[in-house]
Amino acid sequence: MTANNDNTTWSGRSVTCTAPINIAVIKYWGKRDEQLILPTNSSLSASLDQDHLKSTTTASISKEFKRDRLWLNGKEESIENPRIQNCLIEIRRRARKRKHNDDSKSEMLNWSVHICSENNFPTAAGLASSAAGYACLVYTLSKLYDINGDVSDIARRGSGSACRSIYGGFVQWTVGEKKNGSDSIAKVVADVDHWPEMRVLVLVVSDQKKHTSSTNGMRNSVNTSDFLRYRAEHVVPSRMEEMIKAIEEKDYQKFAELTIKDSNQMHAVCLDTYPPISYMNDTSRKIINMIHAFNKYQGELKVAYTYDAGPNAVLYLLDEHVPDVVSLINYYFPPCDNIRETFIRGLKVDFKTDISQELKDVVPLEPSPGAIKYVISTKVGQGPQILPNEASLLNENGLPNKLLQ
Amino acid sequence: MTANNDNTTWSGRSVTCTAPINIAVIKYWGKRDEQLILPTNSSLSASLDQDHLKSTTTASISKEFKRDRLWLNGKEESIENPRIQNCLIEIRRRARKRKHNDDSKSEMLNWSVHICSENNFPTAAGLASSAAGYACLVYTLSKLYDINGDVSDIARRGSGSACRSIYGGFVQWTVGEKKNGSDSIAKVVADVDHWPEMRVLVLVVSDQKKHTSSTNGMRNSVNTSDFLRYRAEHVVPSRMEEMIKAIEEKDYQKFAELTIKDSNQMHAVCLDTYPPISYMNDTSRKIINMIHAFNKYQGELKVAYTYDAGPNAVLYLLDEHVPDVVSLINYYFPPCDNIRETFIRGLKVDFKTDISQELKDVVPLEPSPGAIKYVISTKVGQGPQILPNEASLLNENGLPNKLLQ
Repeated sequence: MTANNDNTTWSGRSVTCTAPINIAVIKYWGKRDEQLILPTNSSLSASLDQDHLKSTTTASISKEFKRDRLWLNGKEESIENPRIQNCLIEIRRRARKRKHNDDSKSEMLNWSVHICSENNFPTAAGLASSAAGYACLVYTLSKLYDINGDVSDIARRGSGSACRSIYGGFVQWTVGEKKNGSDSIAKVVADVDHWPEMRVLVLVVSDQKKHTSSTNGMRNSVNTSDFLRYRAEHVVPSRMEEMIKAIEEKDYQKFAELTIKDSNQMHAVCLDTYPPISYMNDTSRKIINMIHAFNKYQGELKVAYTYDAGPNAVLYLLDEHVPDVVSLINYYFPPCDNIRETFIRGLKVDFKTDISQELKDVVPLEPSPGAIKYVISTKVGQGPQILPNEASLLNENGLPNKLLQ
Repeated sequence: MTANNDNTTWSGRSVTCTAPINIAVIKYWGKRDEQLILPTNSSLSASLDQDHLKSTTTASISKEFKRDRLWLNGKEESIENPRIQNCLIEIRRRARKRKHNDDSKSEMLNWSVHICSENNFPTAAGLASSAAGYACLVYTLSKLYDINGDVSDIARRGSGSACRSIYGGFVQWTVGEKKNGSDSIAKVVADVDHWPEMRVLVLVVSDQKKHTSSTNGMRNSVNTSDFLRYRAEHVVPSRMEEMIKAIEEKDYQKFAELTIKDSNQMHAVCLDTYPPISYMNDTSRKIINMIHAFNKYQGELKVAYTYDAGPNAVLYLLDEHVPDVVSLINYYFPPCDNIRETFIRGLKVDFKTDISQELKDVVPLEPSPGAIKYVISTKVGQGPQILPNEASLLNENGLPNKLLQ
């Protein structure tokens, strides 16, 4: 298979794209329809810059391919995975619907597809990779098959929160009302350029425990938590409005308070589940205590935390406060090896390794060396990107350039 | 001051009583009236056997005493403490209301009181001592002043949950409707003899952290948690009915499920508070995971856990399962010093130091030596008791027998 400028040859076609991970500030926790992946409440996230955290996918079709195949992070996986099939079937259905007059393009729809996907961050970091992965898969396939318009509903069928990674900036996933889920889609709340001062620190926390998968966790919460429905019906609707307003007005105080409250409320629902689910560990809670003490000391909210289905903290803060907050983290959670270049990754400014005595006096913690493995300093970023052919993960035979042995 | 048989002399009178701690299975978390200590929801607890955990109080009055005085655990404290005053004033008001014709007794009401109180367990254990302490204070004063009838509402004015320690067995504290709190009182659900198989294991967990006081925690929860009101209005009323029925019918499965769910829900409200409150630590959560895995392995609930405003676990279980559960605890949380006599206190049966391989295979834990300091094996117990004169904590001069230097 060779490709020309529009990625089309007589015998095949190939597209390579990237997609971001996203970190919710109003949390998705609970499905009202497991098959269609429809949520119990709306949610809102920022897509993160792809320098440090992204998925890359190449999808190729060729007359010469015998069957659909899939490689994830260098290893062939079954393409029969129901969630991948949900996406693939819907993409092909939508492509057929366009009813090409161009017979050569119609024919392409019958060709098999080879898909190769990888993340630029270790799965072991416990960062939700499925959102970026499914967004990237669906976005790439949509470009491969020339599908126009929103495809966030298709990404949603792969992994609920993947729909939000179809766009950059601040993105909401509306709960929707329709039974078929056609109105449960992602919409941009604010473009990546709207609030350029916003920064994100990802604190990768050391952890042994294997955590409940979010799919199983959500199902148990929907079935057993008294609080989940109350949250979905009586808390989130007004909180979504407030959060959208806070982002539109770049009101950091409101944004931070809502972010903190919503993270804790999601984890409260997890604890109210039977059996209870705990994603945060003692380090997570130390980080929480540190941040509340720091904000109190500062007299206003300088940094907000949020937690997903694991112990890692993600902090949202404005660029001017990054040095102080990194100093704080480095003081209370120093790396065991004391090599700060690999401990704080992606930081473009300097920071102090000590903090003031006044601050030490009010933070109710002793330093915990090694409790945080490393920190990724990043920001709100773009949505999916199309890469040039050279970036393809599949070679001219439609096989991965890199394979794990 | 000397005392005769009825504890009365020409110049004074002295009474010594004990009262139990109680551990709630439907939790009290939130006051609707801070002054009167009226709760946002009903609650239900068992009073524990006083062999291991009790408060003892001596209250003496004498014409010769110059002023009211108070000693707690061997140290003089200010009797001006508002909560102690609330109890003392109400006790004296009720005593006066009885309008003695006996002038000598009327006169006694004007005498000063000396109060001496102590616990038979270390405060450092983090077991809520205020419930036993205030129940003991109020019960002792009621005997001193010959007050008949329920005094749980007076104990409630000292510390909310103290009202439940005024009785033995299983006791509910009804939320009440009246503004003056007269219907927010403790009532016996089942006597101590009703369910004699019920056993209690108190797991004292190692902990450095200073925790938010329950008074401050509750206040913050009432002011900021979306879930607290929902719990109080929509969850607890039916849960109380179910729990009372489970106790009446000795339905352990139902009792255990409700106990577990209600503990987790209280802590979910704490987490939904702003700033969030975490009383449980990683050891608490390991115990929870261990118990859910054990129950699942057994095919039914054999043991239930509950947590108050700290990391200690209290387990409710039937006597036949005590050896297996103690073996389980001893295996996953062995004492550092390996001296099992001081590790498991009060146990009257033997237990194995190992557990089956099948059980190890399903419990998702590695042993954590030293994470549990010790275990108190006890049971549901009696309400407050009157002790003979010889047990008095005050000597003939109305001063403590034991004083800390």
